[in-house]
Amino acid sequence: MNVGFIGLGNMGLSMARNLLKADHQLTVYNRTRERADSLRGEGAIVADRASDTCAGDVVVTMLADDHAVRDVVFGEKLIPMLAPGTVHISASTISVALARELAQAHAEAGNQFVSAPVFGRPEAAAEAKLAVVVAGGAKSIDYCQPVFDAIGQRTFVVGTEPHHANVVKLAGNFLVLSVIESLGEAFALLRKSGVEPERFLDVMTSTLFAAPVYRTYGNLIAKEQFLPAGFKLPLGLKDASLVLAAAADARAPMPVASLVRDHILAAIARNGEELDWAAFSRISAENAGLK
Amino acid sequence: MNVGFIGLGNMGLSMARNLLKADHQLTVYNRTRERADSLRGEGAIVADRASDTCAGDVVVTMLADDHAVRDVVFGEKLIPMLAPGTVHISASTISVALARELAQAHAEAGNQFVSAPVFGRPEAAAEAKLAVVVAGGAKSIDYCQPVFDAIGQRTFVVGTEPHHANVVKLAGNFLVLSVIESLGEAFALLRKSGVEPERFLDVMTSTLFAAPVYRTYGNLIAKEQFLPAGFKLPLGLKDASLVLAAAADARAPMPVASLVRDHILAAIARNGEELDWAAFSRISAENAGLK
Amino acid sequence: MNVGFIGLGNMGLSMARNLLKADHQLTVYNRTRERADSLRGEGAIVADRASDTCAGDVVVTMLADDHAVRDVVFGEKLIPMLAPGTVHISASTISVALARELAQAHAEAGNQFVSAPVFGRPEAAAEAKLAVVVAGGAKSIDYCQPVFDAIGQRTFVVGTEPHHANVVKLAGNFLVLSVIESLGEAFALLRKSGVEPERFLDVMTSTLFAAPVYRTYGNLIAKEQFLPAGFKLPLGLKDASLVLAAAADARAPMPVASLVRDHILAAIARNGEELDWAAFSRISAENAGLK
Amino acid sequence: MNVGFIGLGNMGLSMARNLLKADHQLTVYNRTRERADSLRGEGAIVADRASDTCAGDVVVTMLADDHAVRDVVFGEKLIPMLAPGTVHISASTISVALARELAQAHAEAGNQFVSAPVFGRPEAAAEAKLAVVVAGGAKSIDYCQPVFDAIGQRTFVVGTEPHHANVVKLAGNFLVLSVIESLGEAFALLRKSGVEPERFLDVMTSTLFAAPVYRTYGNLIAKEQFLPAGFKLPLGLKDASLVLAAAADARAPMPVASLVRDHILAAIARNGEELDWAAFSRISAENAGLK
Repeated sequence: MNVGFIGLGNMGLSMARNLLKADHQLTVYNRTRERADSLRGEGAIVADRASDTCAGDVVVTMLADDHAVRDVVFGEKLIPMLAPGTVHISASTISVALARELAQAHAEAGNQFVSAPVFGRPEAAAEAKLAVVVAGGAKSIDYCQPVFDAIGQRTFVVGTEPHHANVVKLAGNFLVLSVIESLGEAFALLRKSGVEPERFLDVMTSTLFAAPVYRTYGNLIAKEQFLPAGFKLPLGLKDASLVLAAAADARAPMPVASLVRDHILAAIARNGEELDWAAFSRISAENAGLK
Repeated sequence: MNVGFIGLGNMGLSMARNLLKADHQLTVYNRTRERADSLRGEGAIVADRASDTCAGDVVVTMLADDHAVRDVVFGEKLIPMLAPGTVHISASTISVALARELAQAHAEAGNQFVSAPVFGRPEAAAEAKLAVVVAGGAKSIDYCQPVFDAIGQRTFVVGTEPHHANVVKLAGNFLVLSVIESLGEAFALLRKSGVEPERFLDVMTSTLFAAPVYRTYGNLIAKEQFLPAGFKLPLGLKDASLVLAAAADARAPMPVASLVRDHILAAIARNGEELDWAAFSRISAENAGLK
Repeated sequence: MNVGFIGLGNMGLSMARNLLKADHQLTVYNRTRERADSLRGEGAIVADRASDTCAGDVVVTMLADDHAVRDVVFGEKLIPMLAPGTVHISASTISVALARELAQAHAEAGNQFVSAPVFGRPEAAAEAKLAVVVAGGAKSIDYCQPVFDAIGQRTFVVGTEPHHANVVKLAGNFLVLSVIESLGEAFALLRKSGVEPERFLDVMTSTLFAAPVYRTYGNLIAKEQFLPAGFKLPLGLKDASLVLAAAADARAPMPVASLVRDHILAAIARNGEELDWAAFSRISAENAGLK
Repeated sequence: MNVGFIGLGNMGLSMARNLLKADHQLTVYNRTRERADSLRGEGAIVADRASDTCAGDVVVTMLADDHAVRDVVFGEKLIPMLAPGTVHISASTISVALARELAQAHAEAGNQFVSAPVFGRPEAAAEAKLAVVVAGGAKSIDYCQPVFDAIGQRTFVVGTEPHHANVVKLAGNFLVLSVIESLGEAFALLRKSGVEPERFLDVMTSTLFAAPVYRTYGNLIAKEQFLPAGFKLPLGLKDASLVLAAAADARAPMPVASLVRDHILAAIARNGEELDWAAFSRISAENAGLK
């Protein structure tokens, strides 16, 4: 397919590269042009403006946050520039409210729009092993399937309205944050009671909790290994805030999300912004008088 | 080995039966004698008093709560009745404080004492597939290994003081409760946003959260299938209270445990005591105005 | 003084009227012109545009929320239209972030800016008995004192930067919300224990808690008298959200504010938007199974 | 009247002294006899055993906690020793559960029993200015009125069953703790935003919050003046635990009480047990990175 791609951060660059590997034609745009140039040798066309990526079969946006998406989509007037039939795939982790707004603006312009945020760390993006969570019209999703196949190992269709995918993405991030919180509390109890958290973790991940999220975060938290950061604390704050904003709009109280947000704030206030987002588990340790 | 066994509830009866199957000699005692009699045909000796089980190599207690353990161990004076060399294995889910008290009383009497609570539902107990969490002196643990092998599929040694095993057991139950809470909140957000929880669950359990606890409880909660109850809400209240008591004694605040306790209380206040303990997830749904 | 006044809602209309009574010259503007016209007979000049109020000694804005203030100040370009020496007094309850933004924009334009939100219900506004919380440059505050004297019974200077006054206003609203929450929880305990809340309230307001906030809200909550609404639940949600936004920006976790927000959301989800904001206390009653 | 009095701690000694001043005949008992002897010069008879105080018109117990009350009432068999017609007045802050148990035991023995916990600090006790919260049978209460008049400045009858008074006492202590928590959170926000808490406190206590509890605790918290302690943190932990136990028994979730308990635990874990109970407000400051 002929694919436009906007946003070449850690995740986006790998996704774009995998589209090239899958023999799609690629036109890329990035605000910092050097990152785009690096793909030229692999066959990508480098666009001067975001709107120059809009003439193909689909255009993918993979940007940092609501602000960046607004700048491109509304600021650079992507919506009226889309060629007839070009589908916009929004892969960024953005607010549910913005996803709704994009869907409405595209609908009014007669465009097709699919939301397709992804689960996975940068390594998974590099290996085309992302989980792609998709929502939108069935035809548009079918049409875009080759793009999802190129960047991920599995596609999950979760709803018919684009923002459904964003709700699923945010709810998933919430689950990860809640695991970090619960492990932090459990480990504080264990340590103050004379038990090594690793012993506990071994029991749990050998039985009911045999899942990657407990192994990965359990080890990081047990060892307090928060540098180098995979994702930093402010990204956790962004995610918790997006979850709470979605919850407020939906009139669905989420007290664990509120608690997580408060602990992330405390972690930043006390230890700065550079640590891995799992470091907010340390608030439970500190509140138990450890260290 | 020559094993005494006190407490033939759902879990205890299966554990006792598996000890018989593994060719141990068994003397059993239960307050309600009929349950003990049912094991006679399988080769067990039925004792008239708890203290009549204390002459063998080990005596196992598998009772409902602190109260029941106190009644047997202190009320029926188990400690002074233990034969020299007989090891007491406490497999019940009890408070950390009581485990410490038992350890001290046994130490003063010159007895050996091992704490060995188990993870697993009644089905796992029946199939000898429990996870046995053990703490105590190394020699005593080695000595009791045949008992653990007969009832479980794996033994985890987590510490040198008996109460360490109880802390691990309670922290594990806390993790289960925190998963129920988080899924309840996430599902409320999803449902109010127009997404079916099953779609979300499929994404999560196919990726980072591929663990039995999410599949089992995720399905129960998504379907609101709270009858028949595996464990009932008051048992969840007991567990949350034991966790919070241990946390208070250890001076380790656990806000998610506090929140879970409050939601279990609300579930009992609003819908009674008969539902499965996962039913406290419904408080999140009700607080979001669902149903 | 020659005073411009923008925003004639419940509070604003009374404040404007009191400025007239104190013999100030008044030019008023309101989006819905009829409300402005009602002041003509009392001596006010009615302006056609917000910017027509900017030629006097001071201009007061008393608007519903951030959105309305942005529309007037930035949308109608109030800042460049201010006459030299005219002081802008912002009396609206707005976010700390917007107060900072206004201060900076005025500073860059060489204008004087004072923030002066008020405490008090509509009755207090009508009787010129508001408490006026002021922050900004000392000279500007002195200059505006006749305005504060006309609308309130006491002025409190709380800081040298305008946004300080907004922090105080939001922290005060937080205290009110936290009283509603605490009374709701206490009353639920009392009622489920067979004690009438009024008996308790009488004890408390006769002793340590002899303050208007406990008498007023205590009676409303004890009687569950939530109609007609003084302030409605969505206003409480707005206030709780402003507090939490200020807390997030300041990196100061406020768990009671998070809890209040969650209970307001639950109250709206379950019982709609029409009740008085004290009605979120009912969530504690409902979670205790009352009614 | 002829009054027996058991328990001469800080509060009890002052209360006993005021009974003497009001010309009642007093027989006192205290575990540490020296404190009892100090009243001999003022006309009290000093008893050797708790049960020697039971022959008069009433016997008052004013003891530290459930444990101490159990030791005296059940351990020293007060109930069967009461002379016919002697009324037991329990003034201690004890659990609702124990108050129920005492009521039942007295009822079975044919005794009269009134619960009469008090509000007030040691200074108020010394000046006979306590607020006496009373529940029980109307006749018994009338009969005991001279005792209440001697120790307090006002009596509040709150219910017909003795434990009603204990629920009111605990709910009152909960309100005090919730004020400490809310002020701690508000002050953290203010300080991190550049506003002095005293300025805020002045606004609030001049308006809606003009109550002793805000003045007293507001100043202690603003100045972080936690030594010497009026009541120490472990007493706050006891009170929060009693509230939560009553809430659990009544099936009434109280999330602010849970939060307060967690913050008291954190305060003890981090800073020890010697500070005034208002010191748990510091957790909010520390979690905001202050100091």
